Parts: sequence; C-alpha cells; structure tokens
Amino acid sequence: MIGREVQPTSYPEGEVRPSHFRVAEVEVRSPGPGEVLVRNTWTSVDAALRIRLRPRSPEGYFSGFPLGQAMDGIMTVGRVVESRADGFAPGDVVWHAAGWRDYALVEAGKVALNGIGTLTRLDTSVAAPQAYLGALGGNGLTAYAGLFRIAALRDGDVVWVSAAAGAVGSLVVQFAKLRGHRVIASAGSDEKVAWLRDELGADAAFDYKRGPVAELLGEAAPDGIDVYFDNVGGDHLQAALGALRRNGRVAVCGAVSEYAAAEPQPGPTNLFLTVSKDLTIRGFRGSSNLDLLPEHQRVVGGWIREGKLVQRETVVEGLEHAPEALATLLAGGNTGKTLVHIAD
Amino acid sequence: MIGREVQPTSYPEGEVRPSHFRVAEVEVRSPGPGEVLVRNTWTSVDAALRIRLRPRSPEGYFSGFPLGQAMDGIMTVGRVVESRADGFAPGDVVWHAAGWRDYALVEAGKVALNGIGTLTRLDTSVAAPQAYLGALGGNGLTAYAGLFRIAALRDGDVVWVSAAAGAVGSLVVQFAKLRGHRVIASAGSDEKVAWLRDELGADAAFDYKRGPVAELLGEAAPDGIDVYFDNVGGDHLQAALGALRRNGRVAVCGAVSEYAAAEPQPGPTNLFLTVSKDLTIRGFRGSSNLDLLPEHQRVVGGWIREGKLVQRETVVEGLEHAPEALATLLAGGNTGKTLVHIAD
Repeated sequence: MIGREVQPTSYPEGEVRPSHFRVAEVEVRSPGPGEVLVRNTWTSVDAALRIRLRPRSPEGYFSGFPLGQAMDGIMTVGRVVESRADGFAPGDVVWHAAGWRDYALVEAGKVALNGIGTLTRLDTSVAAPQAYLGALGGNGLTAYAGLFRIAALRDGDVVWVSAAAGAVGSLVVQFAKLRGHRVIASAGSDEKVAWLRDELGADAAFDYKRGPVAELLGEAAPDGIDVYFDNVGGDHLQAALGALRRNGRVAVCGAVSEYAAAEPQPGPTNLFLTVSKDLTIRGFRGSSNLDLLPEHQRVVGGWIREGKLVQRETVVEGLEHAPEALATLLAGGNTGKTLVHIAD
Repeated sequence: MIGREVQPTSYPEGEVRPSHFRVAEVEVRSPGPGEVLVRNTWTSVDAALRIRLRPRSPEGYFSGFPLGQAMDGIMTVGRVVESRADGFAPGDVVWHAAGWRDYALVEAGKVALNGIGTLTRLDTSVAAPQAYLGALGGNGLTAYAGLFRIAALRDGDVVWVSAAAGAVGSLVVQFAKLRGHRVIASAGSDEKVAWLRDELGADAAFDYKRGPVAELLGEAAPDGIDVYFDNVGGDHLQAALGALRRNGRVAVCGAVSEYAAAEPQPGPTNLFLTVSKDLTIRGFRGSSNLDLLPEHQRVVGGWIREGKLVQRETVVEGLEHAPEALATLLAGGNTGKTLVHIAD
C-alpha cells in the first residue's frame, strides 16, 4: 500500500514556510508481530514543533527532526486498520506519536514522547477523537499540570496567561476561570482578544502588539498578579516578573517569541526580583507530568460533559497542508487548537 | 552621651569606596518607655548592603539607605546598657537591626528586617555573640532555608555553590557536606579555593576567574549538578542552567556580579532549558523564611557544639572601618563572615 508522509527538507532560518517540507509517497508494509497499522485521521500542529526544526534541539528536549524522513513524535489520532498486537483490534480509535502521515505502523507498548505518545485506545464516549489532541491530550495535560502543579495555583491567585488564544493557553484561561480565579489573557489580535473576553470569560485581555507589554499588563492587572503561565518568553516574562506579587510563580511552558531567533535571546534584566519578591520560575513539559493524565482526563472530561469547556479548533483539510498550518500558527494566525484533518 | 554612626553621603556608581560614607558624632538620648539602649559590640558587613546604596532599591526589597542618616536594617549584636522595656535587662546580649553605630536605641517588639532584626535576647551558651551575625543569624538562616526549603535538597543531589567562600556560601557548602552531598564550590582566588577544598571539605572547587565558568563547572561536575545555590547571577547562572540535570533547582540568593552595574544586566540566554529539563529557579530572602529560624538554630547550634562547623571570620577593628570592610568584601577580599568589632 502507498501512503503519504510529510518530511522536512531543510531547516528554516527564521520563519517556517511550506517550502521547508515535502510530501513523499512511501510504501506502507503490513504490521509485524506486536505492531498495529493505523489509519491516521487527525494530526496535531503545535508551536513547539518549531523547536525541533533544527539539527540539534535544546538539551533535554525531544530530538531535532532529521531531514528527509517522516517526523516522529507528533501526536495523532486514528483508527486501527490491522493489528498484530494484543489489546488492539481493527476499528479501535487510538492515539500515538507517528503523526503527519496517512498511515502509521506503531509498535504497541513502545514509549513515545516520554510516554504521552505511546499507542493508547481512546474513550470516544467522552468526546470526539480529535479532543484527544487538545483538551484531553498533551495540550490539556500541559495546561492542567502547568497551572495546578507547576504554578501551584492557590485560592485567590490572579493569573496571567500569554498566547492565551492558543491550544494550551485557551485551556489555561478556562481551567483557571472554572476554579474561580481572576484571569488576564493576552494574545496578538483584536479578534483573539475579543474571543478571550467574550467566549472564554477572561476578566481582562489585551493585544500585546498595542504597546509595551509591561504597560498593557499594568493596566489589565493594576494590583499585580500571582501566577504567570508563560508561552512566550522575552518581554512577556520580563513584564511578568515586574507585575508578580510576593511569592508569585511563573510556569514556563514555552517561549514562542524566541523559537525562530538565529541567536540565543538574552533573558529578562529583572531576574533579581525573584530574590526581592520571593518568586519562583519553574519550567516544565506536559509529558514530564504523565502521572497527572488520569486526573486531568477525569476532571477535564467532566467539564466537557457538563458543557463548560469551549474547544475551538482551527482545522486544515488534507495532510499536504500540514506545513502551511504550522507556518500560519507560528505567524499567529490560529485560534484554539490547530488540527489537520487527514481522513474521516 | 555622644556616639558615632556611619552614614552614606553619596551613592556609589560602580565600586564602593570609603569616601561614600562619613562617621558622624551624634547625641544618644536615654531610652523612653518600651525602649532599650544597646552598646553595639559587633556589626555585620554583607554584600547585600550594596543593593541598598541607591535611592530606590528593587521592588519588594528593603528600602534604599537615605543619605546623611544612620543605616537602619543592618544586623548587630550588643549588650543592653539601660532598659525601659519588659524582658530586657542591663547586661543582656541581644541582636537587633540598628547596626553600623556605637549605641542603638531600640524599641522592643518593633519588627525590623522582616522580623529577623527585631530585638532578641541571645543564648551565648551555644556560641559567641558574633556567631549570631553568621551561622546562627541571618546568614545561617539564608543558607539553611535556601538549601533545604528553596532548593529542596534531596538525597544524592550534587550541589554547586558560588561565592562559596563568603558568609552564606561557606555555610551552604558545609551544610550540604554535613548532609552527605557532593559539593562543588567556586570562588575568586586560589587561596579561597584551597580553603574550600582543604578546610570546608568541598569535593571540587574552582576559581571562576580562570576561564569561562561553564567550562570550569563542566570539569568540576562532568556528570552535571542537581542544585545550584546562586550568590552571583550573570555567567554563573547561565552555566548552572547548562549543567543542571532534569528536575534540577536553583536557589537564587543574590547576584553580586550585578549589584554595581549602572544598567540592568541581561539574564541568561538559555532559560529555555528550564522547559526542556524541567528546572526550577526560585529566588528567596532568608528573612522570608523566619519560621525556620528555631529549626535552623537548633540544627546549626548542634553542629557548632559538636565542633563540626568551621566559622571563619574576617574581622575589622573599629566602627570607623566599616565602609572599608564593605568595599573590601565587594572587591572579593574577604573569606567567611565579615564583621566589624566595635567594642568588647
């Protein structure tokens, strides 16, 4: 059988463009013992993929994507077509980490993406399969762990979320609101800001492009903040350190403002505030908190069933448009979860 | 009665010099109701005083020292001369925060230095009074809280301490060794490095002036570190982030490399490693951990009684030499705790 897969063909310097990729036709063999053949239906597009579009990713992170090969380690859902592994049967809906391709041969039990991408059957009675790429999957776990474990959210905390209209950010805003917090959200367009305020219930929201972030944050949170959920880095992190109150916490999830930079970007000039105000800056990866997945799926699954969670999707039709979807996302053109719909 | 006090007369730009201070003679009045008159005997000299030699100190920190006035908020020990406050009698040995002067009128119960500097009687059966400015006082609490609470030291952690020959650093090195850890220590001279290795028992030590810190640290800790106790900031913090292993922690106590800078200094360029390696950077002040003081004094007092703690002091004789002592300390010319001996 012939399938298609997206391969990076060169590493972008600066902006990602579709021309950094190609769609290759490849022979898909039948599963061997312990393997499962999956028809991928939805695949994930995440800003963090940018980090791996280089020969060598930062120490401790998932490795860089080799050129001229399928990209391993991208979350995907699909249907089992053929199984030679115990516990998986044709028709099962599963997730795994061999995304950005039509068909995937997956070894059952093989740990992928620190475990979050290991082949797993999904309970589609809770939500549609693609929700497992968003609120019920890695993005949701990242939001949940970052807010409740890493930032150790406490009653009364005022929370700022940057890149708040993105897949993770939009969940963080909602999780914090569902737990009764005052939430300030920032994003990069008027339309996103309106969505954050009107649909997601952010108490204040601002477009970071409209002025110095520290000033905009100061207007949105005149009494300061207690928690900053950082998806951006750079001037956003600097502004957060200035606005945090004593014992404030930063959960560093990403640094999208820096991913495309040719040179390493200098950190904030006000790090001494961590001393003077007893602040904590804690970086994390969702997948390092896999032990929270059952709790996360139970709690968030409950919110979904009760109709309390807005799950907006930016859907791109057709595997061949995945690179374009990534480029658009990195340029700020998405709202909510970006997905590629490969097949029904 | 006439006493002397040290007053800043101008704010240093860059290096601190004795000419930024004067010694003024002032009238010392008798204590009013609730007040105690103390003959100061030892007063503390700390790198962190540099932070306050400006009109406005960083947000959340102790306020800047006003020019032409005694410096309030410097730890000192002395003997009560006259008391009009319950619980204090002539001859009592006490600590308080009205240092850098011969005599202090102190209001009993008035909170000073977040509480660590509130007038307190000292148990001199445990150690000499001046130990309460070092291992049993604010420096000791800072080392203890930073290592055991803020860095959350765990069995098997490899620890790097910078400015390790200083008052706080030399305690951190010893506390970590006494708990059985591998300790890497860095300082700014061959003599200090030898002292750290030979007297304090550091497993490895290096002079940071001998090359790029990241390289020197890499040689001292080829398998990486788990905890960095930061007294320095700048290139030291950058090197630590590079060397930390997954789930590593930084306790940020100070940033002496940056105190004299005219412009805010950029932070590390490798902050993304906090994400990729699940690192925590936690700033703190000793005085924000006052609840640990009883535990700290009990544990460290025990180590002192058992003869397990090296308490080296750099002693300057005479109040009038306090500014010189601070200048020397900031230039790296001290080892262990720097004290000014005012009177017997």
